[in-house]
Amino acid sequence: MRAVVFEKWQTFPSLTEVEKPKPGPGEVLLKVAGAGACHSDVALYKDFAEGAPGSIPPAFVLGHENSGWVEELGEGVSGVEIGGAYLVYGPVGCGHCKACSRGQDTYCENAAEMPYLGMGLGRDGGMAEYLVVPVRNLVPLGDADPVAAAPLSDAALTPYHAIKNSLPNLAGGGKFALVIGLGGLGQMAVQILKALTGATVIATDMKEEAMQKAEAAGAIVVPGGEGQVERIREITGGRGVDAAFDFVGVGPTIKTAAASMAPQSRFTVVGIAGGSYEWSFFTTPYESTITNTYWGTIEDLHEVVAMYRAGQIKPEVELYSMDNALEAYRKLEAGELSGRAVVVPHMK
Amino acid sequence: MRAVVFEKWQTFPSLTEVEKPKPGPGEVLLKVAGAGACHSDVALYKDFAEGAPGSIPPAFVLGHENSGWVEELGEGVSGVEIGGAYLVYGPVGCGHCKACSRGQDTYCENAAEMPYLGMGLGRDGGMAEYLVVPVRNLVPLGDADPVAAAPLSDAALTPYHAIKNSLPNLAGGGKFALVIGLGGLGQMAVQILKALTGATVIATDMKEEAMQKAEAAGAIVVPGGEGQVERIREITGGRGVDAAFDFVGVGPTIKTAAASMAPQSRFTVVGIAGGSYEWSFFTTPYESTITNTYWGTIEDLHEVVAMYRAGQIKPEVELYSMDNALEAYRKLEAGELSGRAVVVPHMK
Amino acid sequence: MRAVVFEKWQTFPSLTEVEKPKPGPGEVLLKVAGAGACHSDVALYKDFAEGAPGSIPPAFVLGHENSGWVEELGEGVSGVEIGGAYLVYGPVGCGHCKACSRGQDTYCENAAEMPYLGMGLGRDGGMAEYLVVPVRNLVPLGDADPVAAAPLSDAALTPYHAIKNSLPNLAGGGKFALVIGLGGLGQMAVQILKALTGATVIATDMKEEAMQKAEAAGAIVVPGGEGQVERIREITGGRGVDAAFDFVGVGPTIKTAAASMAPQSRFTVVGIAGGSYEWSFFTTPYESTITNTYWGTIEDLHEVVAMYRAGQIKPEVELYSMDNALEAYRKLEAGELSGRAVVVPHMK
Amino acid sequence: MRAVVFEKWQTFPSLTEVEKPKPGPGEVLLKVAGAGACHSDVALYKDFAEGAPGSIPPAFVLGHENSGWVEELGEGVSGVEIGGAYLVYGPVGCGHCKACSRGQDTYCENAAEMPYLGMGLGRDGGMAEYLVVPVRNLVPLGDADPVAAAPLSDAALTPYHAIKNSLPNLAGGGKFALVIGLGGLGQMAVQILKALTGATVIATDMKEEAMQKAEAAGAIVVPGGEGQVERIREITGGRGVDAAFDFVGVGPTIKTAAASMAPQSRFTVVGIAGGSYEWSFFTTPYESTITNTYWGTIEDLHEVVAMYRAGQIKPEVELYSMDNALEAYRKLEAGELSGRAVVVPHMK
Repeated sequence: MRAVVFEKWQTFPSLTEVEKPKPGPGEVLLKVAGAGACHSDVALYKDFAEGAPGSIPPAFVLGHENSGWVEELGEGVSGVEIGGAYLVYGPVGCGHCKACSRGQDTYCENAAEMPYLGMGLGRDGGMAEYLVVPVRNLVPLGDADPVAAAPLSDAALTPYHAIKNSLPNLAGGGKFALVIGLGGLGQMAVQILKALTGATVIATDMKEEAMQKAEAAGAIVVPGGEGQVERIREITGGRGVDAAFDFVGVGPTIKTAAASMAPQSRFTVVGIAGGSYEWSFFTTPYESTITNTYWGTIEDLHEVVAMYRAGQIKPEVELYSMDNALEAYRKLEAGELSGRAVVVPHMK
Repeated sequence: MRAVVFEKWQTFPSLTEVEKPKPGPGEVLLKVAGAGACHSDVALYKDFAEGAPGSIPPAFVLGHENSGWVEELGEGVSGVEIGGAYLVYGPVGCGHCKACSRGQDTYCENAAEMPYLGMGLGRDGGMAEYLVVPVRNLVPLGDADPVAAAPLSDAALTPYHAIKNSLPNLAGGGKFALVIGLGGLGQMAVQILKALTGATVIATDMKEEAMQKAEAAGAIVVPGGEGQVERIREITGGRGVDAAFDFVGVGPTIKTAAASMAPQSRFTVVGIAGGSYEWSFFTTPYESTITNTYWGTIEDLHEVVAMYRAGQIKPEVELYSMDNALEAYRKLEAGELSGRAVVVPHMK
Repeated sequence: MRAVVFEKWQTFPSLTEVEKPKPGPGEVLLKVAGAGACHSDVALYKDFAEGAPGSIPPAFVLGHENSGWVEELGEGVSGVEIGGAYLVYGPVGCGHCKACSRGQDTYCENAAEMPYLGMGLGRDGGMAEYLVVPVRNLVPLGDADPVAAAPLSDAALTPYHAIKNSLPNLAGGGKFALVIGLGGLGQMAVQILKALTGATVIATDMKEEAMQKAEAAGAIVVPGGEGQVERIREITGGRGVDAAFDFVGVGPTIKTAAASMAPQSRFTVVGIAGGSYEWSFFTTPYESTITNTYWGTIEDLHEVVAMYRAGQIKPEVELYSMDNALEAYRKLEAGELSGRAVVVPHMK
Repeated sequence: MRAVVFEKWQTFPSLTEVEKPKPGPGEVLLKVAGAGACHSDVALYKDFAEGAPGSIPPAFVLGHENSGWVEELGEGVSGVEIGGAYLVYGPVGCGHCKACSRGQDTYCENAAEMPYLGMGLGRDGGMAEYLVVPVRNLVPLGDADPVAAAPLSDAALTPYHAIKNSLPNLAGGGKFALVIGLGGLGQMAVQILKALTGATVIATDMKEEAMQKAEAAGAIVVPGGEGQVERIREITGGRGVDAAFDFVGVGPTIKTAAASMAPQSRFTVVGIAGGSYEWSFFTTPYESTITNTYWGTIEDLHEVVAMYRAGQIKPEVELYSMDNALEAYRKLEAGELSGRAVVVPHMK
């Protein structure tokens, strides 16, 4: 079968022929419906030198945002419908530590001993005609479109998890949320916040078009530049926001969010640009917290799918056939995509 | 000034002349904007015999859902704007027990020693031209209409508090809420649930018109009668609802809700019809709870006002001049009101 | 190998020779260290008629409270130490529904389609020389004694889970907890409450000896009989208890607990005697909840093991060799045990 | 009457004669039992220049940790026992904003317009024979010793509030807490953590004697210096601590705590030394938060008193007569106190 393979360190991936995989015990073979191309893929094949922190040694099939139809069951698998459409939870932990036991493989306590982090992350991913997945990583999609669903497994799950951890801060009337960075994840964050909370959502980005999209989704937009923090505070009646989500994560965006917080609020840096922030007792509103986040849990993904099936979140996708799969990565690198690029190996 | 006074046990109130009150220390005199007529007023003046549980001895001015403009400040009061519009938190506890310290006067630990429960509940209420209120019971309305706001202090605060306690059960995607009884409080519950959660809201009532109103507010309605529980379960995919609110509280409505619950859900009986329910380990979904509730906290009322100002909740009111105040109670008794009756003493 | 087998409906189990099992993919073979005999085993083999609710068809090896040393790994298993001591999480769900994804197999959404509920519950249990267990059901015991640990997987996990759900009610100073029924689980509840909360623990039982044991563990004991509820309330300064746990679950114990509750408290019926309780709005303190519970999660069991290893909980056990395994059940039926009977198949 | 008065900026206080105060409406006159001398008093009279952030203009009576017996009731006060012993909640907010409504005057939304922050903080405090207090600031002590109780209103309330906010992180078995800085508040933190949680408490300080005291209270102590973080991690089995409390708050202590955290933990800087910390996505364990804190709520103080009355916390005090009150501040400045200095104006 054909697959997009990350073959060598700091080298653009190849579209190449690989062997069709077989599901092992406890696993399932999926006929891939869609595989999302994510910025972190680019980091994997292009940025990281061998041995750098965060690097994963090639070769493997890319694609950690996957969906598909069950084609074949491995030994011992039951309760899964052949032909049924499923979304794939990407991380794969040891399966028997405390974190994995609650479906939070992202924080697997034995990650250091694992040969991979997940599908498309050391283990073969979904940028291929077929994909092998542990059965517990499947979330049923019912009759919802599996192709558009693919990127939800990261581009929606990541903001969803960060927002879910902030729901106590946003519970009740008169709350305010701030979203910085209105790319795919940030737009999804706006949709999720509007659906799950009564908070006034304030959104900001450098691109006018991205702000218009957020505004159409119900956010109040505040452009960057001078007076931005003052404008945000003004909307909140001076108090500041109860929860903030920074999908960029450079020094200036972290600083903007930090300056916009209310007492007893929660600020989550989601974007991995690695900016730093000088925290101090006297410059932080009382009991306001700052934290980071990483992907989500299997249970979260069930809830993301429920929102998708209820029409509460609508991923914006651009579809690519397998022939054009590398083109998707080229455009991603060049910043030429507006929605999420989804490779559809069995496009008709 | 004129006021609606509950004068004698089991006797319809009088519209009569009383002395204009003076604010004591820590109190404020309000020029009344609106005073809502509530079913529990009818219980007070009509149903309860002297000494019955829940009874409050006359005479006092009725009205526990009040709003107004600050007219005069008592000794030691500052930080309140003369002429400013405020909503009134009705309960008045001892002010120095643990429950009152957190603004939950409803559960005042010294309630037995208090001479009254609140404004319009032993202490003079707002069915009058002027009303005296402790300053901590005021919630600023800003530029929002104070007349329509009046009933929010009970008809919205009560469902709000019950829903706020259930928000952990409704947090996240794929949740379901059930509202039984679509009078004033039930309709408000539908609005609050739609605004603050992503839950699918299922609503039911005996009256077709009430269900249409709930449907317009975004609920899925399920008529009563045979198969009702099955229909509710079907909507939830079989699992049952994560939170239920029964605004009637008779045996059959409690039974319907109890039969509709999911595991780990919360069922709150809000209506005080006093129905009973035979609870048993084996007929209750695991970790599903049943509870009651009573009014709310001052902080809750600040949040209700925030929702009102944001347009997230819209009370439906019928306005009555002071001349027609008793007519409001007559219609309330007769079940002839569709919205909440609000007496407007200074109607132009 | 020898095993205690439930062979026929409503028939005392046999000590008999069965084939030594082989671990399948994702499974592990344990050399059994200990297997606890539980009252619910007696219900399984003695009380339930074929097809009765709660019944599980024979034949299978009994024992759902198990510990052991890893003897052999099934296909695809890694990260588990051969010879290492582990406690076994008993329930086995489908493994891929939302509840199983968070390690709460007890509430598996596909339970109806599963051929068994867990080890010793339809699937072969630990009353045998060897036991096969899915790898995710293992919790490492480190250097703690695995024999005495066996009953923790139910007799500690069940109260632990109920208490964990009540920790918000018991958080902070000045709280009160009530434990009714001081058998194995009730004693464990006293130990857990003393270790994890600052609550004053009030305990009661019909047996003087059981109360002495609870008193030695730090509880204030209140004998049954007239004035019991008054005495409990008096200890709490009149307010009532913030959390109650009824390990009996007959009508009178439920009634006692219900009458002892404070506002905003949580009452959990753990015992499955099936007593019923007539709930009503006006006889329940405000926002006080009543609920049931069932066993616990894998994560909970990790935490139970942490408490055991830290010496915070001390199971009381009576050891039986395989030769005497049936004697353990006979004594259990006769009520002649004081601690938990643990069958030790490889006793030296 | 005699009082310790902060009279001029950056000037040691005077023991001088002032007029005995009269309680206004809603207030109570206390005969002072004890008044604790706190480091922040020193900052007020010695460190802050006029107009500096945090400064409060003189003149006023010092003392924000107060207890006493009710001597006289102001107008409109009832439900308080003449002669009864009470602990005083120090902060005084506007009383009618959202924060004050829940008894969290520390975060009063109208603080900027208030003439003072509380007793001994702009408004006359308890370093005097008599003290006037708003009735809602009183917490009844029952028959517990009011003299030793005085410092609880800050030295226990502050760590209590920080710990209460961290209880979700410490809920359950196998948790770890870290306390840095074992002065009065740190020792109290150790006692509170041991009483309210099952966490293993790790404590550190520069002084050997302080560590011995913490060890006697049940903590595991880890001296400072090289390898400290490694030693802390080792105790936790490598994972890090679930909650940390830094009562010093200089750069190095913040860094030590930050390096000791587990994923999903909470780190609270309590000490106001103003150290800063360079936060970054990649150096922070996932979902671990850092925050600050300030004093506590009235409800918290009720719970602190409950712990004191139950013998769960034991303040260490050194008593000073009014004649020696200034000596207490001199020793405090010189670092010559081991326990909290409490001025006892009516010492026999």
